[in-house]
Amino acid sequence: MRLIYLATLITLCAANVQNIGIYNTIEVPKRYKPDWTDLDTRPLPEWYDKAKIGIFLHWGVYSVPSFRSEWFWNYWKAGMEKCNEFMRKHYPPGFTYQEFAPMFTAEFFDPQKWAKIFAKSGAKYIVLTSKHHEGFTLFPSKKSFSWNAMEVGPKRDLVGDLAKAVRAEGLKFGVYHSLYEWYNPIYLEDRRTGFATQTYVETKLWPDIKQLINDYKPSVLWSDGDWEAHDTYWNSTELLAWLYNDSPVKNEIVVNDRWGIGIPGKHGDFYNYQDRFNPGKLLKHKWENAFTVDSQSWGYRRNMELSEIFSMDQLLREIVPTVSCGGNALINIGPTKEGTIAPIFQERLLSLGDWLAINGEAIYNTSPWDSQNDTLNGDVWYTCTKTTYNARNPIAKPSRSDTVTAVYAIFLKWPGNSILKLKDVAPSMLSGNYHVQMLGQDGYLNVSSLIFSN
Amino acid sequence: MRLIYLATLITLCAANVQNIGIYNTIEVPKRYKPDWTDLDTRPLPEWYDKAKIGIFLHWGVYSVPSFRSEWFWNYWKAGMEKCNEFMRKHYPPGFTYQEFAPMFTAEFFDPQKWAKIFAKSGAKYIVLTSKHHEGFTLFPSKKSFSWNAMEVGPKRDLVGDLAKAVRAEGLKFGVYHSLYEWYNPIYLEDRRTGFATQTYVETKLWPDIKQLINDYKPSVLWSDGDWEAHDTYWNSTELLAWLYNDSPVKNEIVVNDRWGIGIPGKHGDFYNYQDRFNPGKLLKHKWENAFTVDSQSWGYRRNMELSEIFSMDQLLREIVPTVSCGGNALINIGPTKEGTIAPIFQERLLSLGDWLAINGEAIYNTSPWDSQNDTLNGDVWYTCTKTTYNARNPIAKPSRSDTVTAVYAIFLKWPGNSILKLKDVAPSMLSGNYHVQMLGQDGYLNVSSLIFSN
Amino acid sequence: MRLIYLATLITLCAANVQNIGIYNTIEVPKRYKPDWTDLDTRPLPEWYDKAKIGIFLHWGVYSVPSFRSEWFWNYWKAGMEKCNEFMRKHYPPGFTYQEFAPMFTAEFFDPQKWAKIFAKSGAKYIVLTSKHHEGFTLFPSKKSFSWNAMEVGPKRDLVGDLAKAVRAEGLKFGVYHSLYEWYNPIYLEDRRTGFATQTYVETKLWPDIKQLINDYKPSVLWSDGDWEAHDTYWNSTELLAWLYNDSPVKNEIVVNDRWGIGIPGKHGDFYNYQDRFNPGKLLKHKWENAFTVDSQSWGYRRNMELSEIFSMDQLLREIVPTVSCGGNALINIGPTKEGTIAPIFQERLLSLGDWLAINGEAIYNTSPWDSQNDTLNGDVWYTCTKTTYNARNPIAKPSRSDTVTAVYAIFLKWPGNSILKLKDVAPSMLSGNYHVQMLGQDGYLNVSSLIFSN
Amino acid sequence: MRLIYLATLITLCAANVQNIGIYNTIEVPKRYKPDWTDLDTRPLPEWYDKAKIGIFLHWGVYSVPSFRSEWFWNYWKAGMEKCNEFMRKHYPPGFTYQEFAPMFTAEFFDPQKWAKIFAKSGAKYIVLTSKHHEGFTLFPSKKSFSWNAMEVGPKRDLVGDLAKAVRAEGLKFGVYHSLYEWYNPIYLEDRRTGFATQTYVETKLWPDIKQLINDYKPSVLWSDGDWEAHDTYWNSTELLAWLYNDSPVKNEIVVNDRWGIGIPGKHGDFYNYQDRFNPGKLLKHKWENAFTVDSQSWGYRRNMELSEIFSMDQLLREIVPTVSCGGNALINIGPTKEGTIAPIFQERLLSLGDWLAINGEAIYNTSPWDSQNDTLNGDVWYTCTKTTYNARNPIAKPSRSDTVTAVYAIFLKWPGNSILKLKDVAPSMLSGNYHVQMLGQDGYLNVSSLIFSN
Repeated sequence: MRLIYLATLITLCAANVQNIGIYNTIEVPKRYKPDWTDLDTRPLPEWYDKAKIGIFLHWGVYSVPSFRSEWFWNYWKAGMEKCNEFMRKHYPPGFTYQEFAPMFTAEFFDPQKWAKIFAKSGAKYIVLTSKHHEGFTLFPSKKSFSWNAMEVGPKRDLVGDLAKAVRAEGLKFGVYHSLYEWYNPIYLEDRRTGFATQTYVETKLWPDIKQLINDYKPSVLWSDGDWEAHDTYWNSTELLAWLYNDSPVKNEIVVNDRWGIGIPGKHGDFYNYQDRFNPGKLLKHKWENAFTVDSQSWGYRRNMELSEIFSMDQLLREIVPTVSCGGNALINIGPTKEGTIAPIFQERLLSLGDWLAINGEAIYNTSPWDSQNDTLNGDVWYTCTKTTYNARNPIAKPSRSDTVTAVYAIFLKWPGNSILKLKDVAPSMLSGNYHVQMLGQDGYLNVSSLIFSN
Repeated sequence: MRLIYLATLITLCAANVQNIGIYNTIEVPKRYKPDWTDLDTRPLPEWYDKAKIGIFLHWGVYSVPSFRSEWFWNYWKAGMEKCNEFMRKHYPPGFTYQEFAPMFTAEFFDPQKWAKIFAKSGAKYIVLTSKHHEGFTLFPSKKSFSWNAMEVGPKRDLVGDLAKAVRAEGLKFGVYHSLYEWYNPIYLEDRRTGFATQTYVETKLWPDIKQLINDYKPSVLWSDGDWEAHDTYWNSTELLAWLYNDSPVKNEIVVNDRWGIGIPGKHGDFYNYQDRFNPGKLLKHKWENAFTVDSQSWGYRRNMELSEIFSMDQLLREIVPTVSCGGNALINIGPTKEGTIAPIFQERLLSLGDWLAINGEAIYNTSPWDSQNDTLNGDVWYTCTKTTYNARNPIAKPSRSDTVTAVYAIFLKWPGNSILKLKDVAPSMLSGNYHVQMLGQDGYLNVSSLIFSN
Repeated sequence: MRLIYLATLITLCAANVQNIGIYNTIEVPKRYKPDWTDLDTRPLPEWYDKAKIGIFLHWGVYSVPSFRSEWFWNYWKAGMEKCNEFMRKHYPPGFTYQEFAPMFTAEFFDPQKWAKIFAKSGAKYIVLTSKHHEGFTLFPSKKSFSWNAMEVGPKRDLVGDLAKAVRAEGLKFGVYHSLYEWYNPIYLEDRRTGFATQTYVETKLWPDIKQLINDYKPSVLWSDGDWEAHDTYWNSTELLAWLYNDSPVKNEIVVNDRWGIGIPGKHGDFYNYQDRFNPGKLLKHKWENAFTVDSQSWGYRRNMELSEIFSMDQLLREIVPTVSCGGNALINIGPTKEGTIAPIFQERLLSLGDWLAINGEAIYNTSPWDSQNDTLNGDVWYTCTKTTYNARNPIAKPSRSDTVTAVYAIFLKWPGNSILKLKDVAPSMLSGNYHVQMLGQDGYLNVSSLIFSN
Repeated sequence: MRLIYLATLITLCAANVQNIGIYNTIEVPKRYKPDWTDLDTRPLPEWYDKAKIGIFLHWGVYSVPSFRSEWFWNYWKAGMEKCNEFMRKHYPPGFTYQEFAPMFTAEFFDPQKWAKIFAKSGAKYIVLTSKHHEGFTLFPSKKSFSWNAMEVGPKRDLVGDLAKAVRAEGLKFGVYHSLYEWYNPIYLEDRRTGFATQTYVETKLWPDIKQLINDYKPSVLWSDGDWEAHDTYWNSTELLAWLYNDSPVKNEIVVNDRWGIGIPGKHGDFYNYQDRFNPGKLLKHKWENAFTVDSQSWGYRRNMELSEIFSMDQLLREIVPTVSCGGNALINIGPTKEGTIAPIFQERLLSLGDWLAINGEAIYNTSPWDSQNDTLNGDVWYTCTKTTYNARNPIAKPSRSDTVTAVYAIFLKWPGNSILKLKDVAPSMLSGNYHVQMLGQDGYLNVSSLIFSN
C-alpha cells in the first residue's frame, strides 16, 4: 500500500558553502577526568546524530506474564489490583515472579530475522534491554547466577546473538541497562544504609557493566533506574571516564543522561529526560525521544488492543517533530516471550521503512533548520542539510547562510485540496534561486501549487 | 490511515423497475425428503446472499502449539519433519497432542470485544470451529467427555459465549463442524470396516450436531472433513432433511456442500468446493470463497511473519472478485490460545470495516452484473443492485433491463494518472441516461474523467 | 528381620482319606442363562479359592493430586473443604481434574519390577484398576478417546504391560472395573432419565468390558460402582452369561458381586459385600476381604503418615482371620504417579512374603476348619487341608472325618511365656494319633508346650 | 512389632567413684587466635558428645529430579549417561537444572510434624542442608537473589521454620553448608585465577555463613565442599575464630573438619573424615559417622528400591559400632520435594526410637569402654558410663577403675540358642561384684545364661 506522507525538498541558494568541519571522532585522544565538567566536554560521536532513528527492545521475564507492562512485578508487589487479580485468576497462590522465567522460552528467536526487519525499518541503531529493573540479565552475567537468560528460559546469550545479527545488517548495537534492581537484596541493603555502603555497585553493577562493554562493545549504553540515588553512589563519573578513556568503545559509545538524581537533562552524550520526551522545540543539547509503539507498555502485552497501538500517523507525529527539533527517535517495541516480533509491530516497522525509503533524505544526516514547526501550517516540520553542525549544541552554530544547502518541509497531513501552504520558508524564497521537489517523484514541482505567504 | 480503494457507482436508467419478488424465507412450509433431488429444491435463505462477508474463526487445541497450521497433529503423526523437529526441540519425548489442551487457556477471551471488532469489520456472519478434525469440542459436547473446552483448557462454553455476543451485535452466528475425527477410535473402527458400521455416526456425530443445532441455533452449519466417506455413511441427507424440516433453525440455516465423497460443488445451500475457491467467473449456484488472512494457516501461528499475512490489497483482491462473481467471502483468522485476536488481524478487519463503511453499498445486498471483470481493465470488478435475483442460480434470472438499478465498478487499483478506463459498462451508457458517482464523495463525477471505450 | 508370627501344624489321623473330587474347571461346557438363578449354579474356578492372597492396585489420575483418596475428584466437586483448600492453595482457579492427567507420568513404571515384588509377597493374583469412577482408562479403550493412559500421561498400555509381566511371574492377572463414571455425560444422561435409556451401557460400558476381556483375558473381573442402578440397567446377567459361556476366559474367570442394587452378597463367584468386609466367622459362600494397607485411601497419598499405614501385625490380623473364615484377602496398595511402589509398601509386601515363605502351608490351598477362632485364645485362627472342599459353600461339605488331613493353628501373638494354649483343637486330639509341628522348624514340638484344655 | 535387638547392662563394682569433672562449656571465655594450633585447643561442647545420634537432612532442588543422588546436576553436566538419559527422556532439550526449582513445592512441609518424628526417633540433633553444592539456599540468603527457597519453589524460610520446630521438641538444630558452589561464576572466577582472588569468599561465602549463624544460631555448622581449595582461600581459621570468640553461638557450636585441602581428620571440633566413615576402632579425637539410610543417595530418590534402603539391622550395625568407638552417628534421610518424609524413613526413624526407648541407656551419654568389639563375639559392641571423660580425646582418660560405673554389651544379633557369649568383659568379672541386667526387662539375668570365657 502506498503511503501518503510526503516530504518536500526546497533547495535553497547555496553559493558559498564551506565545509567548516563536522565534529567527528577525535583524533588526539583526550583523557577525561571523572567529573561532569570535564566529561561534558566530550564531543558527541558523529554516527549518533546522523542516525536519527533507533529501535528500542524491551524483553525480559516480564514478557512472560506479558500483562500491564514491564513494571508488572513492581506493580503487583505494590498491590495494584489489576495485577493482583491477574495473578489470583491464573496462577496458584504464592507463585513468584521468578517462576515465570522458565516460560521465557524464546523458541522462535531468530536474530537474523529480527535484524533484517530492523534494517528494513530504516532504523540505524538498536537498543536492547540487557537487564531491566527485575535484574534478570539477557546475557550470561558473571554476577547473576541462576537469574539470567543463559541459565533459565531462553538458554542463550540473547545480547550476544542479537548484537552479531544486528551488526551484520550494518546497524549499530546498543544496550539498555538498569542501574538499580527492585528486589536484589544486595542493592536493598545499600539503600537501607542510605547508600552509605556501595556493595551492590562494587560487586554487581560495575562488574556487569564492564562485562557488557568488554564482551559486546555496544555503541550505546542506555542507562536507566538511576533515580533512587545520586551519581556518587552509582560511581557514574568514574564509569563514564572509564568508558571515554579506556573502554574498547571509547570513540564510539554514546550514553544517555540517567546517571543519578539530578543528572537527567544535565549530563550525558544525549539527553532522554523522562520517557516519551518530545518538547516540540529546538534544544541546546542533543536529545532522544524514547517512546513506545504500544502506547501502554514497553514490554509486550499479550492482550494489547489495536486502538492502543500507535498508527503510522501517530508514529510519524513522534518521529518527524523529534528529528526536526534535533532529537533522535528511539522507537520501542516489546518482543514476545517466544522470541517473535508481533506482526503488528513488523507492519509498523516495515511501513516506516517504506516511508523512509522515499523520505529518508529529509531525516538521516539532517540538521534542524531555522524554523521547526511551520507557523501557519502546524502539520509541517522542517529539517535541513548543512555542512557544519554541532549536534551537542545545535544552536551554537556557524551562520546559516554559509552552510544550509537544502530545507525539507515534511507534511504530516496532505491537504485535502492538495494546496501546500508554508509560511516560514517564505523569507528564504526571496532570493528567488530555488527549486521545489517532491521526494519520490521526478522533476520539480510547479511552484504554483505552493503558497508562500509572508 | 485512509484507504484509497474506491468503488464507482454508475447509475443506469431504471424507468420500468418492477419488484418481481426475491426468494425469501418460505411461507408455506414444505417437507423435504432425505434425498438430494428434493433437498436441492430448497431456496437459499435470503440473509445469506445479502450478507456477502463473513468471518471464519479457527480455534482449538492446535492454537496451543500454534505451529505450521491447524493440521499440526496430523502432520506430526504423518512424520512431517518440521513438526517432528518442533516437538523434538521443545517438548519431552512422548508428549502427546492431548497434553496441549490444558494450555489452551483463553484467559483473555472477551466475546463482547471480539464481537465488536467483527461488527466494525463489516462482516455479517461469523463461523466458529465448534469442532475441528482433532475432535476437541469448543462446546460441552455430551459425547466428548474430557475432550472439550468446558473440561480442559478454557473451561467455558466458547461456542455459546461467542454466539451470544455476536448476536448482540446484530450478526449471524454459524458453526463449522468436522464430520470426521482423525484419531477418534470410534470413527477409525467404522473406517476399518469400510464404513459398513456407523457407530461413530450414531453415537457421536449425530448427537453432537443435534446438540449444536438445538443449543446454539446457528445460522450456518459449515460442514467439513467429509472426504473419506460417502454421504450414505454420514447420513447427510437425513441430517439435512431434519435441519430443513424440523430443526429450530429450519428457515434460517444455510449449509455448505461438504457432505461426502462427490458432494462438494453438487449439493448444499452454498458451495465451497475446495478451500480458497475463487473462480473469477459467475457460477450458477451460490458459492462462498473461504480463505485465510494468514496465507499459511487457518489456525493461529505464533511465528507467522508479516510477509505471509494478506495485505489489505490482497484481501480486497479476494473479496471483490468473489462478490462480483456471486460468491460470499468468508475471511478466516485464527484467535490465540490466550483468547485474543492478534492486533495484525484486528487491523485487517478494521481496515476492511473502514473500506466497507464507504464502499459497502457496492457489496452488501448486491447481485452480479452482466460483466464481472472489465474486459479492458482487469483491476475493475462489477456488482449491481437488482430488484429480482435468484441467488441459488444467478444466471437463471429475469431480463436485466427490467431490474437492474445500479452498477458498481470497483477499482482494485487507482490508475496512476487518475483516468478510469472501463470497457464493459459502455453499452449500458448508450441510453445516455445515467450518472457517475464516487462512493464516499458528494456529487457526480465529471464523466470526462472516465473513458468508455467500445 | 525375622518375623515372629508362627503357624502351628497339627496333623490329625487321616487313615481313610478319599479323594472325592474337588470342583475344578468344568469339562462338559454348560451354557448359562442370563438369569441369576442359573448363573449362581456355576462352580467357582478352583484357582481362586486356592490362591487366598491377592494384591489390589488403585492407580489412576487420582494418583496425581494423590490427596485424600482416589475419590478426590468427587469429594472436591461435592465441596469437601479439605479438597477445596488443597486446590485453592496449590492450583490456579478453574483448574480441572482432567488437567491432572498429563502429570500422571509413570516414568519409572517397570512392570517386571512390580511383578517380582508381587511374586515375592506371596500373592497369587493381582487386580489392577483398569478404570475407576473417574472414567480414565489405564488401557487404550476404544470408547474413551483422549481420556486414557495411552493418549494422556503414561502413554502406554498400563493394563497390558502389567498383565504380561505379572503372568511371567506365574501370577494371575485381574482387572477392577467401575460400572459407572461420575461425570461421563453419557452416563449422566441415562441417569437423568431414571435409567430408562441405556446409551452408556451400550456404547461405553459393554464395549469397554468386552475389550478388556478379549484383549487382556483377565482371570478376575472385579466390578464396582454398581450402586446407583439395578442389574437390569447394567445388563449384568447378560454380561455374566457371555463371560461364562462365550468369553475367552469362560473357564478361568471369577467375578465379584457388585452388579447392581441389591446384588452384593447375593450373586457372583465371590462376594465382597462392602469394602474391608471381614466378618470373623465362616460364611456359606466364597468371599473376599478387600482392604488397603494405607488405612485412609486406596489410591496413593503423597502425604500419608506412618501411623496411618497398616503394620505387619495389622496386616496379618486382616489376612489370617479372613483365610480362616473361608475368604480371600485382597491387599490394596496405591502406586505413585511416577510408576513406583512406595518402599513402605514394598516392605509390607516383602515382609508378608517372608511370613508366607514359612507359613504359606497354613494359608494356600487350605480350607476352613470346624473352628475358626479358638474359643480360649482369641489370637489363634485355624485352617486345614482337606481332600474335598466346596469353596462356593464351605459349610455344605462331606463329613469331616473322611477328609481333613491337617489342622493349622495360626498364632497372631506369641504368648509371653511361650506356652501355647488352644481349646478348640482338643477334641481332635482324643484319638491320640497326631503330631504337632512348628512351621519353619524341623522336628515335632514337645506336646507339653501346648495346653489342650477341654 | 517388638524389636529383638537387646543391650545387656553389666554393672561393675563402683565403690570409689569420684566425679573428677567432665569437660563442659567453658566458664572463663578464652579468645582463640585464627590459627589451627590455637583453635584446636578449644574443648568440645559437652552436649555434642552426649547426644550420640543426629539426623541429617539433604533437601534442595535435587529433590525435584530426585534421581541418582543430590549430585545429579554435576553428574549430568559431567555427561553421566544415566542422568543424560533421564533428562533426554523426560524433559525438553535444553531444560536446565535451575528450571527444576519452581517444582520444589514443599506443599506438605509441616516442620512440627517433622520435629515430632525426629524427637521420637531418639535423635538429639538435626543437621539440615542450608545450601548444598548447587548453591540454592534453603534460607533467604541476602547474596543469592532468585536462587533461594524464599523466592523460588517453597517460598518459605525452610531453615528458620525447621529450626524453630526442632527446638520446640528439645532438639539441637544445626546447618550443613557447602563452601563451594559447582556453577556459581563468582566462585569459578576465583578458581580460574588459582584462588588468587577471593571475591566469592568475601562477597558470598562469608556473608552467607554469617547470616546463617546470626539469624539461626545453629548448634552445628557442618561444613562441606572444601576440597578444591586450601583453608587459606576459604579463610577458615578466621571464620572459626569468629565463631568461637564472637558469634552468638560461641559456647554452643560445634564444627566438623571440612575446612580445606588437608584439613579433614586434622582440625575441627569433630572429624567426619570422608562420608560413611566407620573405622571400627577407637579414635583419639571426637568423630562422627555421617551415613545415609538410602544406601545410594543423600537426597531423596523417587525410584529408590527397598533393597537399597538400610534395614533396621543395617542401621544398628552403623550406629552401635560408631558409638562404641567414640563417634556420633548422623543418620541421613532425604525429604521429598513435596515436603514429606517418606514413610519408609519414618518407619526406620521410629523403629530406631523404639529401640532407643529400651536401649538408649547404653547409647546416650556413654563413653567408649576398654574394649569396643568383643574379641570372641563380633556381634557385640561395648559402651560404658563414666564420671570423667574427655570426648575430644577419649584415650587420654583417667584410670578406668575410678570412673567406670557400668558396661553395656550390645548384641547386634541374638544367638540362636540364646546363649550369650562374651570374652572381653570377663576380666572385669573377676572382682565378682557385679550384676547382669537385660535392658527393658526387670530383675537381673541369671548369669548362667552368659558365658564369660577367659
